[in-house]
Amino acid sequence: MSALSYVGSMGGKDFLNTNDYSQEEISEILRAADDLKDDFRKRMPTQYLPGRTLFMLFYNRSLRTRNSFEAGIYQLGGHAHFLSPSDMYTPTLPEDMVPYQTEAIADVARVLSRYGDAIAIRVYGDAAKWVIGRGHKIIQEFARWSDIPVLNMEDDVFHPFQALADMKTIIEVTPKPKGRKFVVSYAYSGGLKPLAVPQSCVLIGTQFGMDVVLAHPKGFELEDSLIKSAKENADRYGGHFEVVNDMKQAFEGADFVYPKAWSPKSFVPPYNKTVDKDGASAYQNKFKDWICTQEMMDLTNKGKYMHCGPADRGQEATDDVIDNKNYSVYFDQAENRLHVQKAVMTMVMGPKRKSMLGEPMIAR
Amino acid sequence: MSALSYVGSMGGKDFLNTNDYSQEEISEILRAADDLKDDFRKRMPTQYLPGRTLFMLFYNRSLRTRNSFEAGIYQLGGHAHFLSPSDMYTPTLPEDMVPYQTEAIADVARVLSRYGDAIAIRVYGDAAKWVIGRGHKIIQEFARWSDIPVLNMEDDVFHPFQALADMKTIIEVTPKPKGRKFVVSYAYSGGLKPLAVPQSCVLIGTQFGMDVVLAHPKGFELEDSLIKSAKENADRYGGHFEVVNDMKQAFEGADFVYPKAWSPKSFVPPYNKTVDKDGASAYQNKFKDWICTQEMMDLTNKGKYMHCGPADRGQEATDDVIDNKNYSVYFDQAENRLHVQKAVMTMVMGPKRKSMLGEPMIAR
Amino acid sequence: MSALSYVGSMGGKDFLNTNDYSQEEISEILRAADDLKDDFRKRMPTQYLPGRTLFMLFYNRSLRTRNSFEAGIYQLGGHAHFLSPSDMYTPTLPEDMVPYQTEAIADVARVLSRYGDAIAIRVYGDAAKWVIGRGHKIIQEFARWSDIPVLNMEDDVFHPFQALADMKTIIEVTPKPKGRKFVVSYAYSGGLKPLAVPQSCVLIGTQFGMDVVLAHPKGFELEDSLIKSAKENADRYGGHFEVVNDMKQAFEGADFVYPKAWSPKSFVPPYNKTVDKDGASAYQNKFKDWICTQEMMDLTNKGKYMHCGPADRGQEATDDVIDNKNYSVYFDQAENRLHVQKAVMTMVMGPKRKSMLGEPMIAR
Repeated sequence: MSALSYVGSMGGKDFLNTNDYSQEEISEILRAADDLKDDFRKRMPTQYLPGRTLFMLFYNRSLRTRNSFEAGIYQLGGHAHFLSPSDMYTPTLPEDMVPYQTEAIADVARVLSRYGDAIAIRVYGDAAKWVIGRGHKIIQEFARWSDIPVLNMEDDVFHPFQALADMKTIIEVTPKPKGRKFVVSYAYSGGLKPLAVPQSCVLIGTQFGMDVVLAHPKGFELEDSLIKSAKENADRYGGHFEVVNDMKQAFEGADFVYPKAWSPKSFVPPYNKTVDKDGASAYQNKFKDWICTQEMMDLTNKGKYMHCGPADRGQEATDDVIDNKNYSVYFDQAENRLHVQKAVMTMVMGPKRKSMLGEPMIAR
Repeated sequence: MSALSYVGSMGGKDFLNTNDYSQEEISEILRAADDLKDDFRKRMPTQYLPGRTLFMLFYNRSLRTRNSFEAGIYQLGGHAHFLSPSDMYTPTLPEDMVPYQTEAIADVARVLSRYGDAIAIRVYGDAAKWVIGRGHKIIQEFARWSDIPVLNMEDDVFHPFQALADMKTIIEVTPKPKGRKFVVSYAYSGGLKPLAVPQSCVLIGTQFGMDVVLAHPKGFELEDSLIKSAKENADRYGGHFEVVNDMKQAFEGADFVYPKAWSPKSFVPPYNKTVDKDGASAYQNKFKDWICTQEMMDLTNKGKYMHCGPADRGQEATDDVIDNKNYSVYFDQAENRLHVQKAVMTMVMGPKRKSMLGEPMIAR
Repeated sequence: MSALSYVGSMGGKDFLNTNDYSQEEISEILRAADDLKDDFRKRMPTQYLPGRTLFMLFYNRSLRTRNSFEAGIYQLGGHAHFLSPSDMYTPTLPEDMVPYQTEAIADVARVLSRYGDAIAIRVYGDAAKWVIGRGHKIIQEFARWSDIPVLNMEDDVFHPFQALADMKTIIEVTPKPKGRKFVVSYAYSGGLKPLAVPQSCVLIGTQFGMDVVLAHPKGFELEDSLIKSAKENADRYGGHFEVVNDMKQAFEGADFVYPKAWSPKSFVPPYNKTVDKDGASAYQNKFKDWICTQEMMDLTNKGKYMHCGPADRGQEATDDVIDNKNYSVYFDQAENRLHVQKAVMTMVMGPKRKSMLGEPMIAR
């Protein structure tokens, strides 16, 4: 595969949600990621984005996302700015402005568009006030005003680059994932976690025609709009999508299992009047038996263990599962973040401005 | 214009205040900025500073300054370190040393001079204890000890790169600014803001022979030494400088208006015994009618609206003014920060050491 | 000297303690540092590590270490990530994990190994809970799990890059240091300082056959294992090692003096049940007369004054000593940090993985 076929091929586009792209477009990204992974292993130069600047705005902590984006853009010949809201006037939605502490996202996005080439944002949880959808709204506001591509590094609805890395990892095991059983299951953690990972997982699984089973206790339902999209994906791409409330039932015969914590949404807005963290914690503490053990893995069809990381060891899964070299692809998923992100950056950060969409690409 | 004519042409010099340079030298910087802006738009390579390191020391928050300097040095082939005082022992004046929390600026400047090529500093407000001139003294202390150029990214007296960007923006509208009416006016904000922007504005306006009118309520006087310099500039460069206490009177027939908040100096040292933030806030809260509206813009000679950003929307100016595409140059000023800073860096970061001043330039 | 002889020559190795290397290997590093220093002065390109990423993890503040590593890897054509534990889930030993606040070092090390080329860590004092050896244990844990070289940027036992810079500085003064008198002396500071610098100093001094005298008041003993290693070095390399409790006696006839504070270990674990900072402070406050003055320097054999920086001025040494241009090598030591670190990075960051040790080197 020649890099010339994908450098700048989606020039100027935002990447907010995998489902904004067709299966064919996602496949093209994954093939570019394969190419970049080969080059990385062989230490071949891949400086497709010389002079390009990526602004990375982290409202939340990060290990994998920050380091894979910063190393990734550098390996492509570009440069990232690590921006913490505390180092600037926090970019904020109109309704949340605090005088002398914040700056309108509309202004921040337009200013950064004058200096560089893409804006990547992570925002969920406390930073989005635990109002589900508020984080995604922040990212959409950036996309509205920015003249350069906006990349979603995880909000409270979607984690699209994780989903890309997950599908790349699945395809490395099973080149034709269609029809394979992919279980996205709740697993216990005492921490309060967003819905983004399971939601993006079921979207990309159904988009590739997999037999996707979502398993969780009652009270851990994903958002309705999401379930609707997953069903539409299954119909469109010839897969299946099912929701069950039993972890063991789900694991039986699975090819891939993805046991991962998220929090019950009925304790936070818009599904509750207030953010009731104590209520959410108390409720989820009833489900400590939703843990991935060797016994659980034995139920699968020699399935692979998956997790976006960091896994809460001893809660979501036992150490012997996470570190099992035969079936855990935990570190492969982490590595593939690097490669899929480099693929998307290479494809969208070609021409400088959204207003140039449709013009000939400047690959150099 | 060939880059060879300006790369390293002011090698080794500090950039602390526009008024340390002649009109001709400032014009040379602005021409270099034009050249670099053209290349940026055309995505031409401008790697005039390969291997050069810029140390950026931010005592205060920043969006435009940090991102334009970091992207700028990278576009020139160099690299910036983003340094927060909390990540090091805070570089401090001799009289302010705190054992085990601070390190003498004399030492910090000499150490960094061994590793890289320029030191840029932002310090005002709380970080300079609200003693007017203390921030500038910190920057002068760096310049005294550093063997590499020191760049003023805004202190409590001057904001010279903003002034360069402002004059570049004015010249883009009016290639010959001499005689044009440039109004630097107080505008209300509830926040406590330094004097640096209006002071650097009146300096550069008078340095280019403009008809500069400074407008503010009583109590918002700029520093005496500054007023003296502005008058001298006006005399030297054939312009005018006037101070009025009426915003409407000032705006009448203006070609450029720059309504911007600063704080009354009589509430802070050395003009007051203590830092009386409450007193300053109470006093400035009397002037909420100093706001730039469409009605105010109608008084001008089809004048352009200017602001360094971030503008306090609804206080300093209304949204419809800031976002008016016909006369607001708000985002052009922000963009021009990038280009003028790249020009100065290219010119001063050529030869490595101040001790090499006068030697032949080493362009790359 | 040709760079080709050292680029990748120690590919994949960790650098945790100078004493893990032979005198000949250390000498090879110092020769490479000479070569890189020459090139730095002449502004010759030294891009031996293109595309290489260095992860720098700072649990503690830093000026010299951070800036010399970040500028250094950039001058070598690579790129550093400045990582603060507060920006990620803090990498932590198994016994210290805090749910939802920390991530196992085992996981962090394995993830970063997938993205880049070396991990550098600074950790001591509060960040290592003032349990002597805990900081070094953290770094060893990184080294155990990482598949890329781990570099010790100072822990609570060793500061090996400082020792390299110190020996380079000594050799610049005295090309054959064998037999020269090198005094590593306690000097007073009110702050609580780790043992790392004096311990690494006596190791490298004895490794080069110097006549090393360690001077301190009773109660400031270095660790037993360290004293044992220093004696073994002296035996092996034909030098001397002696411990005295008198600063003046030590300084007499010295060629190099290194007066530097550290804290009495008997007030912290494992030598005490609790971390008794007040007890340590009270005890060390008895020794304010351990200060390096001109009078002390007069006792030496026209000796050089050394300190790793930042020196506590007026406590460890007087200003006239630190800033004496005839005998203070304070800023040369700081500069040499840059060159020795570039040498080690160039040597160990060649081939990508520890598992590749022994394979042919991939220079670029």
